[in-house]
Amino acid sequence: MIGHDPHRTYRTAVIGAGSGGLTAAIGLSGFGHEVVLVEGGAVGGDCTNVGCIPSKTLLHAAATDNPDPLAHTRRRRDELAAEEDEMIRDHELISLVRGWASLTDRRDGDAHVVRVHTDAGDVEVRAEHVVIAGGSTAATIDIPGLDDSMVVTNEKLFEIPEAPQHLLIVGGGAIAVEMATAFAAIGTRVDLVELLPRVLAAEDPVVTDVVEASLRSQGVGLHLGTTVERIDDGTAHLADGTALEGVDRVLMAIGRRPRLDRLGLELAGVDHTPKGVVADDWGRTSVDGIWAVGDVTGDTMTTHGAGAVARRTVRAIALPKLPKLKSLGAIPSAVYGVPEVASVGISTAAVEQIESRHRLVVRYDDVDRGFTDGIVHGVLVVDVERFTGKILRAAVAGPGAADMIGIFTLAIDHGIGLRSMFSMVHPYPSHAEVIRQAADDFAGLTYSSLPTEWVAMARGRLRRLTRRS
Amino acid sequence: MIGHDPHRTYRTAVIGAGSGGLTAAIGLSGFGHEVVLVEGGAVGGDCTNVGCIPSKTLLHAAATDNPDPLAHTRRRRDELAAEEDEMIRDHELISLVRGWASLTDRRDGDAHVVRVHTDAGDVEVRAEHVVIAGGSTAATIDIPGLDDSMVVTNEKLFEIPEAPQHLLIVGGGAIAVEMATAFAAIGTRVDLVELLPRVLAAEDPVVTDVVEASLRSQGVGLHLGTTVERIDDGTAHLADGTALEGVDRVLMAIGRRPRLDRLGLELAGVDHTPKGVVADDWGRTSVDGIWAVGDVTGDTMTTHGAGAVARRTVRAIALPKLPKLKSLGAIPSAVYGVPEVASVGISTAAVEQIESRHRLVVRYDDVDRGFTDGIVHGVLVVDVERFTGKILRAAVAGPGAADMIGIFTLAIDHGIGLRSMFSMVHPYPSHAEVIRQAADDFAGLTYSSLPTEWVAMARGRLRRLTRRS
Repeated sequence: MIGHDPHRTYRTAVIGAGSGGLTAAIGLSGFGHEVVLVEGGAVGGDCTNVGCIPSKTLLHAAATDNPDPLAHTRRRRDELAAEEDEMIRDHELISLVRGWASLTDRRDGDAHVVRVHTDAGDVEVRAEHVVIAGGSTAATIDIPGLDDSMVVTNEKLFEIPEAPQHLLIVGGGAIAVEMATAFAAIGTRVDLVELLPRVLAAEDPVVTDVVEASLRSQGVGLHLGTTVERIDDGTAHLADGTALEGVDRVLMAIGRRPRLDRLGLELAGVDHTPKGVVADDWGRTSVDGIWAVGDVTGDTMTTHGAGAVARRTVRAIALPKLPKLKSLGAIPSAVYGVPEVASVGISTAAVEQIESRHRLVVRYDDVDRGFTDGIVHGVLVVDVERFTGKILRAAVAGPGAADMIGIFTLAIDHGIGLRSMFSMVHPYPSHAEVIRQAADDFAGLTYSSLPTEWVAMARGRLRRLTRRS
Repeated sequence: MIGHDPHRTYRTAVIGAGSGGLTAAIGLSGFGHEVVLVEGGAVGGDCTNVGCIPSKTLLHAAATDNPDPLAHTRRRRDELAAEEDEMIRDHELISLVRGWASLTDRRDGDAHVVRVHTDAGDVEVRAEHVVIAGGSTAATIDIPGLDDSMVVTNEKLFEIPEAPQHLLIVGGGAIAVEMATAFAAIGTRVDLVELLPRVLAAEDPVVTDVVEASLRSQGVGLHLGTTVERIDDGTAHLADGTALEGVDRVLMAIGRRPRLDRLGLELAGVDHTPKGVVADDWGRTSVDGIWAVGDVTGDTMTTHGAGAVARRTVRAIALPKLPKLKSLGAIPSAVYGVPEVASVGISTAAVEQIESRHRLVVRYDDVDRGFTDGIVHGVLVVDVERFTGKILRAAVAGPGAADMIGIFTLAIDHGIGLRSMFSMVHPYPSHAEVIRQAADDFAGLTYSSLPTEWVAMARGRLRRLTRRS
């Protein structure tokens, strides 16, 4: 429903109706709670309106030769956004307040008092629990000579009426790679400029090499380890001396920053850093009854990451006396370009710190489905502890990556190592047979020297324990 | 290498160089064993030459608008077959004998004596262990009026020079469904006639409904619960009165039968039924030192099923003193049509016998990737035990099915139930989110009535125990 009772104390107020906020509000309503949901922009947040939904719709439309992929994307996105908006407006237990919320330093009994700036003036919301799900905003940089009218971030990208002739993408993360693939597929000339020496720099070079080779084969110009120094009359001059002519659109995709200002964090005494609101994996902040989930915490900056924590916040608020669930499971990440990329586990930097490990690399064309489908750009990299084969990190670039990664997510969540995955049977000929091959390779690498492996594993664990203490 | 020493006793002889036989021979060679490999047909067996490899290559070529998909398929298949043949011929530890093998009633010390009928006459092979991997052959039926020159099974299908104008497929299993999809995609008119009321009859109706709707949308004529009574001058008359005109090719895809004759099973005293050689999940037959893997056992009739048992046979022969691996893991099955179909767990018939269960059905378009990609034909069905959510059977029809099913295979192998999968995080927006939705639905269905669920689960287990004893 629209509007709330400013004098009443609600069980929970949720700030922000994006992925994290909707998960929290709808989840709590499932327990019969009345929730006030405050949103100043569009219901659905970035994901529905300017993020995952339009980007994946555009990728699919581009891959399937849709005659007007941008219009198709807007139409589908608007359908979903309207549906979500209606669902919230009509929800009996959710009171939607359209405006921008700030925490205050005031309490009313057990309740936190939240101020909301609406078109009709300021109103107050009283709630025992406040879930901050304020999201993030696209970062931008100034480039000398760049005409503002040429610039978009993901927040305006899907509104451009026609595909550019020549798109310059600044940045090399998930949005940059996905949009390079989508626009290249619909005939736009695409150049991507990234400061770091690799795209998707959080991934392993074995994976990013595959992604880069694929992007080049799609006709995307990759300019890595360099920057755009200036843009004159549609010509971008890079620090490495390259000049890219005829640029008519610049997509800034250099990262996202949590939207921290105007949340009233100082007033309410909620700990935060420039990277985000500090919260544990239940969403608990430094203030009792104030929670934070999603991009505003700066943690995973993904819809599923926001959702995973928000689901736990819901449990913590609705069922405070139930035994706690076990710790937050492994959170995979995925990039939906060509090839799809997905990974799960500790970071590549943390992997590097572990000496007692084996690395298994299997190319898609090492297994038969790669052969029948002629897959050139596909690889699985698994880093495992020696002896046990405990999964430290797994990354897949190739068809089915985002679905296949779940096998590793489940393995990590339940402590199942590659040694035990040796006996797992995958359908033939599926892409997932790369996992069988990795398990075989691990067995081959270790079976004749199990005592050595055991010692290496034990010493490695001891070293890490010693370092920590 | 080619040829063997007839007077020597080898550790192992393998009969058949298809999926199961190659896995056994190469696996044993990995342990340093010398192996005699007997094959009367082409190295690679059905899978490489007339099965999985050409069928999946044709499906991929058809889906990607290859200009001459049949020629492309033969070329790729021949490349792989030549590579496998060369790999075996050049293998230092594998002695390839080209001919048809029969067991005998003779022993030479510890060795079984196998007779091989070669072009140059009969020779003998002596080996302590014999692995029967003789494969299967396509079943056919007589149809009155049918001209033999029009008929193919999978064994000749990929040799036809040009795509038929009008292909009649008799049967509704994996080969029938895959080839209906492939030939429809390359412009052949396709009609499929199946005696049973559904295609892929081993799957659940919720799944086969999706497959049938998709086949119809591809233009495939489905004639279910009926038979071909006769064929006159290219017109097929069905028992239900339908007449299909202009049929120029008939694909018999009514199943596969283990190739049991001429193996000398009676002479050697190896137990068998018309369904296949009787073997346990290590490949052990009724005779010490004689093993059987793959289609000849009539068990899973899949390459990965053959491989899974053959890998265990290798361990049992090479490392007889090592502790046994745990029991054979769950063996999934997959069909690579559009949509892909994959399933794992107990049979649909066995599921029906279990009363204390919940069924979760999630459509692909219930999750956001289904929305962005406009997926109409996609569904997940999971049958689980009440309370624990223990996976009885999971089946997926939709993109990524054969890769996603591994999440359930691993869950079954390690006793992980849907209740515990509630906390598993899948990348957003991946197809695998159907699994999250199923876990959510299960939690919603059961959280408010856990005591009732527990009692139902406990009673169900008790009933099954009582029935068994």
